[in-house]
Amino acid sequence: MDAPTIKSKFLTTNNELGLVAVGFSGGQCKPGVDAAPMALIESGLVEQLRDDLEYAIHYDGQVHAYTELMPAADPDHRGMKNPRAVSAVTEQLSKQVYAHAKEGRFVLTLGGDHSIAIGTISGTAKAIRERLGPGREMAVIWVDAHADINTPETSESGNIHGMPVAFLTGLAREKAGEPFGWIGEDQRVSVKKLVYIGLRDVDRGEKKILREHGIKAFSMHDVDRHGIGKVMDMALGWIGRDTPIHLSFDIDALDPMWAPSTGTAVRGGLTLREGDFIAECVHETGSLVALDLVEVNPSLEEQGAAETVRAGVSIVRCALGDTLL
Amino acid sequence: MDAPTIKSKFLTTNNELGLVAVGFSGGQCKPGVDAAPMALIESGLVEQLRDDLEYAIHYDGQVHAYTELMPAADPDHRGMKNPRAVSAVTEQLSKQVYAHAKEGRFVLTLGGDHSIAIGTISGTAKAIRERLGPGREMAVIWVDAHADINTPETSESGNIHGMPVAFLTGLAREKAGEPFGWIGEDQRVSVKKLVYIGLRDVDRGEKKILREHGIKAFSMHDVDRHGIGKVMDMALGWIGRDTPIHLSFDIDALDPMWAPSTGTAVRGGLTLREGDFIAECVHETGSLVALDLVEVNPSLEEQGAAETVRAGVSIVRCALGDTLL
Amino acid sequence: MDAPTIKSKFLTTNNELGLVAVGFSGGQCKPGVDAAPMALIESGLVEQLRDDLEYAIHYDGQVHAYTELMPAADPDHRGMKNPRAVSAVTEQLSKQVYAHAKEGRFVLTLGGDHSIAIGTISGTAKAIRERLGPGREMAVIWVDAHADINTPETSESGNIHGMPVAFLTGLAREKAGEPFGWIGEDQRVSVKKLVYIGLRDVDRGEKKILREHGIKAFSMHDVDRHGIGKVMDMALGWIGRDTPIHLSFDIDALDPMWAPSTGTAVRGGLTLREGDFIAECVHETGSLVALDLVEVNPSLEEQGAAETVRAGVSIVRCALGDTLL
Ligand SMILES: [Mn+2]
Ligand SMILES: [Mn+2]
Ligand SMILES: [Mn+2]
Ligand SMILES: [Mn+2]
Ligand SMILES: [Mn+2]
Ligand SMILES: [Mn+2]
Repeated sequence: MDAPTIKSKFLTTNNELGLVAVGFSGGQCKPGVDAAPMALIESGLVEQLRDDLEYAIHYDGQVHAYTELMPAADPDHRGMKNPRAVSAVTEQLSKQVYAHAKEGRFVLTLGGDHSIAIGTISGTAKAIRERLGPGREMAVIWVDAHADINTPETSESGNIHGMPVAFLTGLAREKAGEPFGWIGEDQRVSVKKLVYIGLRDVDRGEKKILREHGIKAFSMHDVDRHGIGKVMDMALGWIGRDTPIHLSFDIDALDPMWAPSTGTAVRGGLTLREGDFIAECVHETGSLVALDLVEVNPSLEEQGAAETVRAGVSIVRCALGDTLL
Repeated sequence: MDAPTIKSKFLTTNNELGLVAVGFSGGQCKPGVDAAPMALIESGLVEQLRDDLEYAIHYDGQVHAYTELMPAADPDHRGMKNPRAVSAVTEQLSKQVYAHAKEGRFVLTLGGDHSIAIGTISGTAKAIRERLGPGREMAVIWVDAHADINTPETSESGNIHGMPVAFLTGLAREKAGEPFGWIGEDQRVSVKKLVYIGLRDVDRGEKKILREHGIKAFSMHDVDRHGIGKVMDMALGWIGRDTPIHLSFDIDALDPMWAPSTGTAVRGGLTLREGDFIAECVHETGSLVALDLVEVNPSLEEQGAAETVRAGVSIVRCALGDTLL
Repeated sequence: MDAPTIKSKFLTTNNELGLVAVGFSGGQCKPGVDAAPMALIESGLVEQLRDDLEYAIHYDGQVHAYTELMPAADPDHRGMKNPRAVSAVTEQLSKQVYAHAKEGRFVLTLGGDHSIAIGTISGTAKAIRERLGPGREMAVIWVDAHADINTPETSESGNIHGMPVAFLTGLAREKAGEPFGWIGEDQRVSVKKLVYIGLRDVDRGEKKILREHGIKAFSMHDVDRHGIGKVMDMALGWIGRDTPIHLSFDIDALDPMWAPSTGTAVRGGLTLREGDFIAECVHETGSLVALDLVEVNPSLEEQGAAETVRAGVSIVRCALGDTLL
């Protein structure tokens, strides 16, 4: 392995990496996803990024559980479960990610359930606007079996890991003082700059939202029709060459054959090869500024946990410039 | 999920569905395939079609075993095993399917082994000619690891589930009074309107038949060469836009990795994604008038049975208009 | 099944096949790969080639262990492990393969670890030059997770099964009398006539070699980007229509899901369908003159061994003209 050869368009250097480990599972109901960052790190991810890919890693050395932020009571709000906890954690995470991103570092966040993307994407969006100018919008590539774009009202479960895109795009909003009322305009992303890949379990209300807002989405049907090579051409063509990209990768985008240990596994997913390919292609653009890897839950499967962790490591390595040749 | 949005070209309405459950296994030697309709129904298929996809379902509420039609003795005839039983069952099934199809309903038949397609396709072929005019031919898309086009003379096993296409196209014929002598000209389909997808275990005699009659066949080699997207373009292009389609889906077309619990599993098959994709594409034509789902055998695999049933449900839902987005 | 219909461009007849069974494992450290030829033969490979594909098989009836060639002592040389043993075995194997190839027969070699390709390719290269003229170069298609192009100096393990391509192309050389000093100019192949397919675990030093020599290599990333159909078009286009081809197939090119029982399995590999497709496409050129099947190790996996052997048989059958239709 070698240091990546692709030159970054939007980062200060090619090899400064801010790492945030988020041991938080409050955006959904299954315990264990909080153990993912430690499992990923123990499997050697940090050493590999440092030694093989030659990144200078800025890492505070801890998996954040944010226990000090947990509210004494957290009743449902607009049907959301744990609204104050998730809001407080993501508000704090947003600052952590922003602190790395405003230095021009790549930001790698290891979750945690997908609600944490409210923190990560709001953090990079704000930093990108400050660094590149207020008119500059960041794109988000959301690789997932699910669209995670429910509003509190369309959600059937109330789990906030199914809502982060709604809050990040402003489709769901709260007044100041309410949960997620802290999200400002400079922390949001446009629905026009959002691209989905891997969708195959989208709620009826979400389908309506995707259609009404003309959101670019490549379902597994599209992957089968065109092949992943053409899908990535189209996805990156939609975003354009001059736009920073935040890649938010839910491991459940992969088929359970390769990533069984995740909270809401859905059959008919990406092969590990396709997942790696997506990450490689996004890296090759030179536009990638941040990556989330979420929803690895090592406690769900005895045998499948190690394989799921390995899949996660593989996705991260590919997004950070590891190549086969 | 929503009611399908594709407008049917050849059915009276978009949402009338005749369901026939056929618990018959006499076209081959392994018991258990007769239990498939109940397994599919118990897994919620009917409710899903009714509630999610909003079909009005015409179903007599029973899995037909046709025990009253079983002959006292059924010696081999031209090498065929159970010839009178299979002939009597398919003759009766043909009438059942015809009764739905002449009302302009979509006909869904849950098998049973693939010999039952002698009944289903003869029934829809006759109804289509009556409804659309005698010159109108129906096309058949046969998704299968096998060609099922042996004549009684080319068959090595004598199992009739390997012969339905020969009887349906008139390559194999019987005099009136003999088994399958009941099949009339208006119940047959043309070899020119037949398209195979997924073939990978074709007998020597069958290969000769396919070549001599110029039958359109996409083997797994073609799927690998072109991708399933292009294969469906070619398959549907061959059939044309103005031709009703009967889709006969043998679950053994799928790779044993996704559908292990079937009587004649063959490696190197379609992924579940590819199977779903085929069904989705055929639905999108608006030309689909009937679907057979056959050869699920829940008794063969302890662990794989549930997965095979789920795969079958998925194929049916996709063919009936379920979409990812 | 039938005799192949593709006419061979470079062999004397279409159906003469020389078979060499090589029970040798000295090019690497895990015992058991020497048992592969017997496992492949016991699974019916020879009968299938004879009866289904109608080959006239020239086979001495024994799995060669070459015990008579084993040196009393075999200390490391330039870091290579077992250098004299591997050199002696491959020198002898080269003569065996040459003897078949100079008669214009197809040569099928069942390994054994991949170091044996030093013997097989040197044998066919020499025979091809003699039969077709000294200016005629043979191409090599190397299907493998690994590039096997380490020189003794770049190798970290010292296992010679990671070096055969270096010796065969002359990138690694030895003086006469030293191990592999026996390889003559007429036994080598050009780096320009070498094509890799399936690479995904290539050492840093090997990457450098591939780049510096402009060697044509299709990694798994390329297979995902283009699909295997297009990759084969490009690979065969690079070689051209008028060049004999030696196909050296390492079973570890396949994903461990289909071929788990091999010494250096790497995730993210070819599906069995893709492996078969490669073999079919190379057969269809009419240019294939020899095939190695290597690195099946039946002792490594209790359950996976039979499946890996079956995968190996499938690859051989496809390369020798078995077709689906
Ligand atoms: Mn998800
Ligand atoms: Mn998600
Ligand atoms: Mn079949
Ligand atoms: Mn069938
Ligand atoms: Mn290898
Ligand atoms: Mn090798």
